[in-house]
Amino acid sequence: MIIDALIDKIIATQNPTCVGLDTALSYLPEGMAGEVSSPDEAAEAVYRFNCGIIDAVADIVPAVKVQIAYYERLGAAGFSVFGRTCAYAKEKGLFVIADAKRNDIGATAEQYAQAFLGKTMKRNMLACDFLTVNGYLGTDGITPFLQACEDYDKGIFVLVKTSNPSSGELQNLRLEDGRTVYECMGDMVARWGAIAMGKYGYSSVGAVVGATYPEEAKILRARLPHTFFLVPGYGAQGANAEMLKNCFDKRGLGGIVNNSRGILCAHKKSGGDPYTAARAAALAMRADLQNVLGEICAK
Amino acid sequence: MIIDALIDKIIATQNPTCVGLDTALSYLPEGMAGEVSSPDEAAEAVYRFNCGIIDAVADIVPAVKVQIAYYERLGAAGFSVFGRTCAYAKEKGLFVIADAKRNDIGATAEQYAQAFLGKTMKRNMLACDFLTVNGYLGTDGITPFLQACEDYDKGIFVLVKTSNPSSGELQNLRLEDGRTVYECMGDMVARWGAIAMGKYGYSSVGAVVGATYPEEAKILRARLPHTFFLVPGYGAQGANAEMLKNCFDKRGLGGIVNNSRGILCAHKKSGGDPYTAARAAALAMRADLQNVLGEICAK
Repeated sequence: MIIDALIDKIIATQNPTCVGLDTALSYLPEGMAGEVSSPDEAAEAVYRFNCGIIDAVADIVPAVKVQIAYYERLGAAGFSVFGRTCAYAKEKGLFVIADAKRNDIGATAEQYAQAFLGKTMKRNMLACDFLTVNGYLGTDGITPFLQACEDYDKGIFVLVKTSNPSSGELQNLRLEDGRTVYECMGDMVARWGAIAMGKYGYSSVGAVVGATYPEEAKILRARLPHTFFLVPGYGAQGANAEMLKNCFDKRGLGGIVNNSRGILCAHKKSGGDPYTAARAAALAMRADLQNVLGEICAK
Repeated sequence: MIIDALIDKIIATQNPTCVGLDTALSYLPEGMAGEVSSPDEAAEAVYRFNCGIIDAVADIVPAVKVQIAYYERLGAAGFSVFGRTCAYAKEKGLFVIADAKRNDIGATAEQYAQAFLGKTMKRNMLACDFLTVNGYLGTDGITPFLQACEDYDKGIFVLVKTSNPSSGELQNLRLEDGRTVYECMGDMVARWGAIAMGKYGYSSVGAVVGATYPEEAKILRARLPHTFFLVPGYGAQGANAEMLKNCFDKRGLGGIVNNSRGILCAHKKSGGDPYTAARAAALAMRADLQNVLGEICAK
């Protein structure tokens, strides 16, 4: 099962992180971005940069998270480079999380599910292992993704408590029954996840839980013992390793932490080769997390 | 302002509908779909079919809604055909609603906003007038779309009460403060909409409200007097004209009703030329709505 394979790899690399390929053209070194004069050229430059980053980290991280918005921005060439980036990461042995937060009614969600996780005319169009989705529409909008998870051994992460400053506006409101909206969404995710439970006690149907809200993460970790967390918010968004302790269980498992700008833009701080800088940043992040996870496991 | 222009056109055509180009390959006549053997060929067939539909209805409907999931399914060629379909509809004088339900944290939402509504490297990548978005992340995930609405005179429709069977699972839950989740989302949309209020008293920041839930539509119409509704659910999803009366104000304004399969697949019932069948279905829908709106306005 895909969630077991991901956790196996997290254990093997001793690194519950993923590198976020939210690759804006402005993140590239001047030498690479400077000659670009069209969205098509930008897409190719982004692809070259992504390959360099993937090569630099493939032996030390288990996964990449590819944020499709940055690719859609570049039109069809960008969409193509999104797919090629996923394929290249897969080739290098990385798990690929497509961060697309898709959502729609059943018949349409089916199209997204097949596009990202399934097949079109018997072909795999994208080499994604996991897809992020938004559960605002309820169960029948999620069912096609669950079906694709079952049919093709894939996984999804449903937005539960997001990392952004305004996430509480809706998500932290309290329902009549005493639960917050994010707890309610978490409960739905746990129910959906029953279809794909793996050997570590985690489901291939996981949740997005922002590292920037450690209190909510603590509540959710206790409430959803079988739900694996994709954790954004470390680094540029303001969360440190201490803050994301709450996302993990006593074994130090249960989550994967994303870092995008902290790795892609490491060269802007350090100067020098961007890939060397990215690897150094990824190693520093691993050490930072190992430190905190070591404390959890020692307890 | 874009919402005024859309309402002007709805009045001119006496037709508050849009044709949904949720074009699955299986909706095409056998003669067009039969020779297709790859996703690239499928995308081209879909484009030819879309152009035929657009030509057949351009003088009688004000807008099309293009559902991007069906295009993403076909890979980069599909993404390209999504853009070409939007451009062709625009060329024929139709308003273009991109139905993509995008959502993310601010920095990423900015990429989507520019991709669909704004510019990339000073170019318009997609010819969309409106974009559907999901507000689960709260204000800072919506702000980049609002900014694009202001900068480029565009509009958005935020999911409030969706048309699908499970939409109530989250959306109809009652909050501690007495509001339902969909009312709360509606209130946020009304607040966001204050930036772009037009001459008819409606904002370019609208809401998606399913025709399949007439009670909720009635509540929302009263609660959100300045919010224009994009109304899915007519036809194949089960709502009839009587059910969507509640989406309109006393002038017969305030909403635009989508029909996808009822128009694209009309030829499957009638036989014969698919475009003639689509035009007949669009005319029948207009008559159906005019009937009901006539009743409202006569009161």
